[in-house]
Amino acid sequence: MALINENYLKLQAGYLFPEIGRRVSEFIAANPDKKVIKMGIGDVTQPLVPSVVKAFHEGVDEMAKGDTFKGYGPEQGYAFLREAIAKNSYQSNGIDISANEIFVSDGSKCDTGNIQEIFGNDNKIAICDPSYPVYVDTTVMSGKTGVCQSNGYYDGIIYMPCTEENNFIPDFPKEIPDLIFLCYPNNPTGSVASREELKKWVDYATKNKSIILYDAAYEAFITEDSIPHSIFEIEGAKKVAIEFRSFSKTAGFTGTRCAITVIPKELVAYDSEGKLHSVKALWNRRQSTKFNGVSYPVQKAAAATFTNEGKKEVAEIISYYLENARIMKDSLTSNGYEAYGGANAPYVWVKTKNNATSWDFFDKVLNEANVVGTPGSGFGPAGEGYFRFSAFADRENVLEAMERVKNLA
Amino acid sequence: MALINENYLKLQAGYLFPEIGRRVSEFIAANPDKKVIKMGIGDVTQPLVPSVVKAFHEGVDEMAKGDTFKGYGPEQGYAFLREAIAKNSYQSNGIDISANEIFVSDGSKCDTGNIQEIFGNDNKIAICDPSYPVYVDTTVMSGKTGVCQSNGYYDGIIYMPCTEENNFIPDFPKEIPDLIFLCYPNNPTGSVASREELKKWVDYATKNKSIILYDAAYEAFITEDSIPHSIFEIEGAKKVAIEFRSFSKTAGFTGTRCAITVIPKELVAYDSEGKLHSVKALWNRRQSTKFNGVSYPVQKAAAATFTNEGKKEVAEIISYYLENARIMKDSLTSNGYEAYGGANAPYVWVKTKNNATSWDFFDKVLNEANVVGTPGSGFGPAGEGYFRFSAFADRENVLEAMERVKNLA
Repeated sequence: MALINENYLKLQAGYLFPEIGRRVSEFIAANPDKKVIKMGIGDVTQPLVPSVVKAFHEGVDEMAKGDTFKGYGPEQGYAFLREAIAKNSYQSNGIDISANEIFVSDGSKCDTGNIQEIFGNDNKIAICDPSYPVYVDTTVMSGKTGVCQSNGYYDGIIYMPCTEENNFIPDFPKEIPDLIFLCYPNNPTGSVASREELKKWVDYATKNKSIILYDAAYEAFITEDSIPHSIFEIEGAKKVAIEFRSFSKTAGFTGTRCAITVIPKELVAYDSEGKLHSVKALWNRRQSTKFNGVSYPVQKAAAATFTNEGKKEVAEIISYYLENARIMKDSLTSNGYEAYGGANAPYVWVKTKNNATSWDFFDKVLNEANVVGTPGSGFGPAGEGYFRFSAFADRENVLEAMERVKNLA
Repeated sequence: MALINENYLKLQAGYLFPEIGRRVSEFIAANPDKKVIKMGIGDVTQPLVPSVVKAFHEGVDEMAKGDTFKGYGPEQGYAFLREAIAKNSYQSNGIDISANEIFVSDGSKCDTGNIQEIFGNDNKIAICDPSYPVYVDTTVMSGKTGVCQSNGYYDGIIYMPCTEENNFIPDFPKEIPDLIFLCYPNNPTGSVASREELKKWVDYATKNKSIILYDAAYEAFITEDSIPHSIFEIEGAKKVAIEFRSFSKTAGFTGTRCAITVIPKELVAYDSEGKLHSVKALWNRRQSTKFNGVSYPVQKAAAATFTNEGKKEVAEIISYYLENARIMKDSLTSNGYEAYGGANAPYVWVKTKNNATSWDFFDKVLNEANVVGTPGSGFGPAGEGYFRFSAFADRENVLEAMERVKNLA
C-alpha cells in the first residue's frame, strides 16, 4: 500500500503566495473593472536588461547549430559562469571564494528548500519569525518538526522573534540550534545586518558547531558601505556558513530562473559518531544525482550580468526599485504608518492601522485600495499585525498605490 | 552540532555518469591526439530544431519588453504548455488526461528523484535491475533502505532482475512493493513493454494498492503501433500510476531543460490510518514550496514541439537516432556480439565478449577503440557483463565507432 509522507499533513493552509494569488483572482473576477496594483508577491516588473537579452539570444543560437550545440552541462553549472561569479561577487570584494565552491541552480527557493536533504532529521533548526515561508515549510516536510500548535509554531523549530525591539535582528535563542537560517537584507522586514551583528552569529555558530544558512538574495540592494553583502566577509564564516544568492531580484530573473549556492570547502558537518564530512561534497552528490544543471542559454544570460555593460544596466534597475522603496517608506511614514525597511532592501514593513490582523488588512487594502500587499502573519506568528509592501513595481503604480492606501482607516 | 543525513554514507562510489566523465577526461588528457567518440552518457547531439529555436528567441524577446515581460510563472508550468501537452501527448491519442494533471519541470531526473519526498519512508520500493541509477540512489538518500551488501544490493529495496530470460520485463517480485519504478522503452536495455505486459502491472498495482512510477522518457522512439506510449493507455492506470516524460531525448532538450510529470486526479495514497490522500495535491504542495517553475523562454520553446512544423522536425531527429540504433544493432550482431534493444528505443544493450566485466570492457573499448559506452554494471548488479551503446551520436561517428569496436577481442 503506497504511503504518503505524513509530515505533509502537518503543514498549515496553503503556501502563502498561492493563497494570495487565489484571493486576488477571486477579487478580479468579481471586480473586472477595477485596476488592481500588485505589490504582493515580491516579483520584479522591469524587463531583462539589453546585455542579458543579447547573451540569452546568443545562447539560443548556439543551441541551433551542430558545432556549438550543448547537451547535458555540468550539474554544478558551467565554468564560465561559476568563474564570473567567483570573480565578480567574491574575489573582487576581497573574499576568497573559488569557482568550485559555487553551485549554479534554477532558484534559491529550490536550494534553500533542498539543502535540508543533506542534513539529518536530528538537527534543530532555528528560523527567524517572521521569515520567508520556505524555510519553515521545507523543515516541516523534511520531518524535522512536530505538529503545529494553536499559536502557529511548530514543535521542534527554534523560533527567533524579530521585532522593533531587537531591530529585527534576532537574539541568540535559549536552545542551541544546529542549523540557523538568516536572511539579510531581510525578507520580509527590509532590515539589514551590520558586520558586528553578523560577526556575533558567526562566532556563535563556531562555538556551537552550528551551520548558518545565509540567504543573501537581496544583497544587490545594499547601498551603504558598512553593510556586508556576503556572510563570507566575516572572519571565520567559511567554516560555518552556506550562502544563497539569486539572479531573480538582482537582474530580473524571476521568470528566467538562475541562482547560486556557495559552500566553502572548509565547511564540515558531523555524523553520529562525531566524524567530519565535507558539506560541499554532500551537496555535490545531491545535485549530481537529483539535478541536471541550468538551461545553457540561461547561464549565458546570467553571465552577462557581470560584463561592464551588464553591471551598469543591472545597477540602474536596482536603483529604480530602491527609489520606489524610498518613496513608499516616506509616503507611508508621513501618512501615519509605522514603517520599517525601505533602504538597502526592496521591502517596506508596516504596522497595520487600528491593530487590524494582517489578513484583515490585506482584504481591506485589496477591497478598498485595490492594492495587493503581503500579510505579515503569512511570514510567521510574529508578523501578525504587519504588512509587507514590495518595491518591485512600476513607478506610476507605486505612486498611485501610495495615494490609494494613504487614507485607509 | 550540524549533523549530516547519514543515508548519504550508504551510497556506493560516485554517481555513474560523473565517474565515466572522470575516466574519459583522464584518457583524453593522456592521449590528446586520439579522437574519442562518445556514446556513453546518452546525451543528444543534434541541435534544437528550427521551430523550437524560433519560439525560444521569441520567448527571450518577450522578456526584453516591459509589456510582455514575465516574472514568476505558475510553479506547475504555463497553461499554454500544459494544454499543448494534454492535447498532443494524451487527448489526441484517446487518453483522458487534462492540463491540470500535468506538471512542467526542469527535468525527469529531478522529478523521478524528488517524487520520493511525498511518499513516506515505510514504503517498499521495487526497482528493475538494471535500471537508471537515479531510482536507486534517490531511494537510498531518502532513507528508505538499509546499507549496501557486498553483492551490490541495498537492504530494503526490492530488486526485479531483467534479463534475456524474461525478455527484460520483470516478473512480479516475491515481496509486494508499495512503489514500483518501471521504464519503457527501457534505459538501459532498450527493451519495450507490450500492452499486455503493462496491463499485468496495472492490475498488480491495483490489487496491492501500489503506485507505479512510470518513466516514459523514451516514448518518442516507439515506432510500432502495438507498443503503448503511455501507461495511461492501459485501463485502470490512472488510479495507480504517475508518468514521467521529457523533452530531453524527444526534442534535444538535455541542455535546455524541460520535462513533464503527469499525476491523474484519481491517484491516491494512504496515511497510516488508512485514509486516502490525493497524490496530485501532495506533489502540487511539494512543487509550490520547493520549485519556482521552468524558465519562460524554455516553456515557449517546448510548446513549439507541438506545432505542425515542430512535430515534423522533431520526428526527423528521432528517425535519425533510430537509424543509428538500427545500424549499431546490425553491426554488433553481425560481428558476433549478442545485442538487444535498438528498435523503438535509442539504446543497444550488448553482452561483453569473453565474459569481461562491464568496467573492464569499458576500459578496453575506451583504450583500444577510443569509444565511450556505458558499463552495464553501473545500472545495477544484473547489468554486470553488459554494455550500453547509445544511438545519440552523429551518423559518421556511429559508423566509425562500429568499425572500431567490431574487431575487439
